[in-house]
Amino acid sequence: MKRKGLLIVLSGPSGVGKGTVRKEIFSQKNTAFEYSISMTTRSPREGEVDGVDYFFKSKEDFEELIKQDQFIEYAEYVGNYYGTPLQYVKDTLEEGKDVFLEIEVQGARQVRDKFPEGLFIFLAPPNLTELQSRIVGRGTETDDSVRNRMNEARKELAMMNLYDYVVVNDQIDLAVDKINAIVKAEHCRRTRVEKQYIAMLEEK
Amino acid sequence: MKRKGLLIVLSGPSGVGKGTVRKEIFSQKNTAFEYSISMTTRSPREGEVDGVDYFFKSKEDFEELIKQDQFIEYAEYVGNYYGTPLQYVKDTLEEGKDVFLEIEVQGARQVRDKFPEGLFIFLAPPNLTELQSRIVGRGTETDDSVRNRMNEARKELAMMNLYDYVVVNDQIDLAVDKINAIVKAEHCRRTRVEKQYIAMLEEK
Repeated sequence: MKRKGLLIVLSGPSGVGKGTVRKEIFSQKNTAFEYSISMTTRSPREGEVDGVDYFFKSKEDFEELIKQDQFIEYAEYVGNYYGTPLQYVKDTLEEGKDVFLEIEVQGARQVRDKFPEGLFIFLAPPNLTELQSRIVGRGTETDDSVRNRMNEARKELAMMNLYDYVVVNDQIDLAVDKINAIVKAEHCRRTRVEKQYIAMLEEK
Repeated sequence: MKRKGLLIVLSGPSGVGKGTVRKEIFSQKNTAFEYSISMTTRSPREGEVDGVDYFFKSKEDFEELIKQDQFIEYAEYVGNYYGTPLQYVKDTLEEGKDVFLEIEVQGARQVRDKFPEGLFIFLAPPNLTELQSRIVGRGTETDDSVRNRMNEARKELAMMNLYDYVVVNDQIDLAVDKINAIVKAEHCRRTRVEKQYIAMLEEK
């Protein structure tokens, strides 16, 4: 029996810096993650390579794949489809490799339905950590400003409900370090480890 | 509101190398853990200092503390008591520091009752990881030997049921690295992080 890979999903509010964190992770020499290439119906931009930057498909092909339930998640933006193909992710996980997705919050919800055992990481804006000092305050902020921040924090709290981990993106290298630690730790989770051994013992 | 510390409990079958791993963790310069000093009724050995190696107590004092429910866990070995004092752990966690306990499996069970939110790490012997290759086998092992290993593995599986994580002690630096990653990851767990923010928002 082979250890199955982990599906790692990085998401969070738009503008939080998901893409920057993902690029930093994949720029590291020792990254043990496979990046799942998205599929899209938009035309390749100059320099973009099919199968590297995206899988480029016609609208008809994409819609056919939707019908066949071949996406983990997909969405339409400005008249074009974007989606995460299911087969690649399934195959790569079966090979025992960890697959990394960086997607929008709406997409993460769809992934959770298909891969409940996935590892869901919410990248949070630093204002959430600043909350404490803001509330404690030094009299330098108006009541309105404090109230606004608290409302924002409430919205983000509601959003993170789906996730297993919350990583604050206050410093990119710290965020990357935490994400790597989370993946390492998850591979040691008793429920995951145990399952493998039980399967092994039953095989014999 | 202050972030509470994590109670980290390292345990596992006797002889697995818990003490060695703990010493390695505390020999690191950047260890952010506080080590909880045990209390005992045995006499100090040469060079042992009260409040450093152990808190040395009389049998009467120890039994009085048992009556007052002042131990997270305790046990009697060869006529002497050994235990983990509750107050120090409570105070240190309140200060926001992570407390590290290295204890026997029986003790870990008692700790789980008092600190269900603790972080329980099972240090496993490498034979568990070797299980796969042993079972797959290369015809070099007798059936009896394979069967014995599988029985051992079953016993260890039953023991690890209480724990959140399983770290295999095949190489000490790898084990220490995993334990550090687990603690870092746990500080990002949504359920822990969320609780802090909800408390903060409610305080206002």
